[in-house]
Amino acid sequence: MFVLGIDPGLTRCGYGCIESTGVGKARAVALGVIRTPTDADLPTRLHQLRNELRELIAEYRPDAVAVERVFFQVNVRTAMSVGQASGIALVEALDAGCEVAQYSPNQVKDAIAGYGGADKAQVQRMVQLRLGLPTPPKPADAADAAALALCHLAVSPMTRRVAG
Amino acid sequence: MFVLGIDPGLTRCGYGCIESTGVGKARAVALGVIRTPTDADLPTRLHQLRNELRELIAEYRPDAVAVERVFFQVNVRTAMSVGQASGIALVEALDAGCEVAQYSPNQVKDAIAGYGGADKAQVQRMVQLRLGLPTPPKPADAADAAALALCHLAVSPMTRRVAG
Repeated sequence: MFVLGIDPGLTRCGYGCIESTGVGKARAVALGVIRTPTDADLPTRLHQLRNELRELIAEYRPDAVAVERVFFQVNVRTAMSVGQASGIALVEALDAGCEVAQYSPNQVKDAIAGYGGADKAQVQRMVQLRLGLPTPPKPADAADAAALALCHLAVSPMTRRVAG
Repeated sequence: MFVLGIDPGLTRCGYGCIESTGVGKARAVALGVIRTPTDADLPTRLHQLRNELRELIAEYRPDAVAVERVFFQVNVRTAMSVGQASGIALVEALDAGCEVAQYSPNQVKDAIAGYGGADKAQVQRMVQLRLGLPTPPKPADAADAAALALCHLAVSPMTRRVAG
């Protein structure tokens, strides 16, 4: 099973495509960040992000896409563009026929590091260990996206939401 | 020139397709609201909104699409879904080759009613007058969308932003 985790954002949108290779086992198929030019206007940036997400989904054909559930309180300055990016990611995933799930940052921390109050560095180390990587994935947005995908693999049997 | 105004939202997304019929003259071609089922999950609702916006743009083939510039401060509870809806609207408009513009609520009020502090009822009356309608458009979201389109017709010669 392939799961694509997406940490939505306009300046940096993290993605991590993770393959489940057995119970509790997983490997990273692709980890990275989509960037859009900060000097372009908002519609152009959103459109470009949409195109790159579409290509990513077409290339890796994930069974499921896990998108971070965004809360506007977290970062006032970028909240709206994160919301716009997340909406686009959710629609693209559903459009491609993928199962779609959203997880809050605390759900991800709880699933990956064992408790919802884990800090970013702990989550990144756990992602590194779970994927057998020599170092934590960089940039942090790619690690966060991988954590989302691992979270989905961990909890989806219980909370599976099939796109309908 | 056809301008489609969009007041983004998930429960109610207002739209108003306005045709410029001469300097300062305009008529309403279509006014309405797209609703998505409140009992469906978020990805499904966003996907449905995307499909309906796409059909609307395909049907009326607007030259320009004017989307309200959203500020998350306005309504904390719905801010994120409004952001997600706006992102989807901007991408659909650009995808269809339309000129795309965003206007803040104050820019719209200023363009329609003459000052940025105008209240909703004043804007709705001005929309009614400008479009020669017997009553203000209902629901309010449709009137707000028509106001966005009229705002674009009023200010676009100065601030034209061609989708690139």
